[in-house]
Amino acid sequence: MSVDPVALTADLVRCPSVTPTEGGALVLLEALLSEAGFTCTRVDRGGVANLYARWGAKGHGRTFGFNGHTDVVPVGDLAAWTHDPFGAVIEDGWLYGRGATDMKSGVAAFAAAAVDYVTATPPDGAVVLAITGDEEGDALHGTTALLDWMDAEGERLDACLVGEPTSPDHMGQMMKIGRRGSMTVWITLRGRQGHAAYPDRALNPLPAMAHLMARLSDHVLDTGTEHFDASTLAVVTMDTGNAATNVIPAETRATVNIRFNDAHTSDSLRELVQAEIDRITRDHGVTAEMEVKVSGESFITPPGPLSELVSAAVQTETNRVPEMSTTGGTSDARFVKSHCPVVEFGLVGHRMHAVDERVRVEQIHQLKAIYGRILRDYFAGEPKTFR
Amino acid sequence: MSVDPVALTADLVRCPSVTPTEGGALVLLEALLSEAGFTCTRVDRGGVANLYARWGAKGHGRTFGFNGHTDVVPVGDLAAWTHDPFGAVIEDGWLYGRGATDMKSGVAAFAAAAVDYVTATPPDGAVVLAITGDEEGDALHGTTALLDWMDAEGERLDACLVGEPTSPDHMGQMMKIGRRGSMTVWITLRGRQGHAAYPDRALNPLPAMAHLMARLSDHVLDTGTEHFDASTLAVVTMDTGNAATNVIPAETRATVNIRFNDAHTSDSLRELVQAEIDRITRDHGVTAEMEVKVSGESFITPPGPLSELVSAAVQTETNRVPEMSTTGGTSDARFVKSHCPVVEFGLVGHRMHAVDERVRVEQIHQLKAIYGRILRDYFAGEPKTFR
Repeated sequence: MSVDPVALTADLVRCPSVTPTEGGALVLLEALLSEAGFTCTRVDRGGVANLYARWGAKGHGRTFGFNGHTDVVPVGDLAAWTHDPFGAVIEDGWLYGRGATDMKSGVAAFAAAAVDYVTATPPDGAVVLAITGDEEGDALHGTTALLDWMDAEGERLDACLVGEPTSPDHMGQMMKIGRRGSMTVWITLRGRQGHAAYPDRALNPLPAMAHLMARLSDHVLDTGTEHFDASTLAVVTMDTGNAATNVIPAETRATVNIRFNDAHTSDSLRELVQAEIDRITRDHGVTAEMEVKVSGESFITPPGPLSELVSAAVQTETNRVPEMSTTGGTSDARFVKSHCPVVEFGLVGHRMHAVDERVRVEQIHQLKAIYGRILRDYFAGEPKTFR
Repeated sequence: MSVDPVALTADLVRCPSVTPTEGGALVLLEALLSEAGFTCTRVDRGGVANLYARWGAKGHGRTFGFNGHTDVVPVGDLAAWTHDPFGAVIEDGWLYGRGATDMKSGVAAFAAAAVDYVTATPPDGAVVLAITGDEEGDALHGTTALLDWMDAEGERLDACLVGEPTSPDHMGQMMKIGRRGSMTVWITLRGRQGHAAYPDRALNPLPAMAHLMARLSDHVLDTGTEHFDASTLAVVTMDTGNAATNVIPAETRATVNIRFNDAHTSDSLRELVQAEIDRITRDHGVTAEMEVKVSGESFITPPGPLSELVSAAVQTETNRVPEMSTTGGTSDARFVKSHCPVVEFGLVGHRMHAVDERVRVEQIHQLKAIYGRILRDYFAGEPKTFR
């Protein structure tokens, strides 16, 4: 069997699978993979569709996994698109559509590579495709549900590649071996309402919030670590909602988003923010409330056999040595990391989440070739220790 | 004629004259004053009713004026009132109702005092009552409209007393000889939107705003002047409205309210705020927009013949020497000031603008007595120079 990854990308783009809608994408993949000899299991949870497809026997030999998602973000301003976002129109070498790069092309490329590979050269081991219908949403019932199910069923991977777009400008430019952690902190400061003409009789929480946000945003968390860029802290909103200019309000709120490297944990950062809040409540007499949501801790698969395997395949196919980066937002690699070594490699992310999202057709072929080479190299020779 | 100021207060409270509704209050006063020989003119402007009532000939002898308002603020949470806010119920020596202190009782007291005085002892001069139906609202067509009309008609006052509540706790405790100025500054800072994971690619206006508000709120404008408390600056709101925790917003807003004494003008403060904004835009690279609304400059009628006249009358009737204060929010005295010397003296402001607003019945009688004494003393002996 030989699967055309461009045609498959186009078929997937035509499925309107805006999170959490399955939209036909996983059904289409299940049919293709089943035909190619994969054992397919739908692991649907909490209104989200997920597909686990394994070629080869469970627990026999080494197992290489691909992870990806078929859900897409909403189209946004439809009128601003020059092509139907679910039309998969190809023009001047570009395939247009929502999910064209993020990441139906990536899923198509690894599915095509896997089908070609197992049907042409059945390996002594297993190839797994773990594809979710919720990466763009809350991701509560997506890859985590697949991993939970795998644990329960004794399914396991020795190594995994997440097929998200990874290169900013050129094919083969960058792979990702980890990500910074991400957490959001909501802070409420409370004082005592009063008349703006008599500030002494009120307790204005706004100067306290201004000082707190100034201190937090001035704080240098670190200057980067061996594999990571510097951690960052962004004040993303400050809100009070007081329309009365003669009233000092009792309460004000702010939100801070922190992206952190391996010099920190969400716990250490929570303590840092709490210490700054404590200082402000002490100095200003206000009371404070803090709510923290951790999207993910920082993680890394340090440079080693898996990243070398992927890097070598990328070099062979693109003549570029991919940078081993830990930049960017979160991805499902943060979940896979607790299961097995994981790296990310994929396309150039043209206009991800924006209007006129698109992918260069020849790069889909190139990506399929890279994934195919990774599979061949992985199963060639003696089993390597990836853990 | 002898007018009962408590019955008149009750009659006025029963008029539902929430700004800008006349509610029957000025109609009632016009009838009473006309009967007592006042020449009454309705100076209605822009949907607001105003009443100008003069006893005595225009331009003959000295003229003493009272200024006040019959409009009231909304009742707020009606269910929280223990008595009908427009019922004027008297219980345990208190008269309850919206406007009971602010300031239908004050209007009733000066109207009653004026009627009694001019009918019993016709003075060699004129007594004017300039009463507006919009002090609590925008005040665009209230006392200013009366003053404009007076200018156009050649009506003039030699001295004026505004009958607003002036004492915090005890009758006779405080009179007002001026007020701080008030201005509001709306500030918008703009940067460049971006992903919270890549703050270097965005330009976050929020740290700039935090620093700006911290600096402004830390700034000591002054420590008070001869007749004034210290100027104050209150940050009353900071708003961004960004619900996306992974997005650095392009824009954020804040509002600052400044109450300032005679060490400043709205122009000097505008320059001060602009200098702080300039510093922030320079340091942070953001752009800024500032909008200023001046509610009033600071003003004062320095201690002199008028304040001494009022103070002496208060001492005689209450055995208290009223403090000559410049505290508090704005009042229509800020408009009258440009016409003639003006002071404010009135009741204790129990629960002004709050639920269960109320006034002690005996204090209405006391206030009428004070106003009556002021009129007698003013017209007694040789004309004093009040200007």
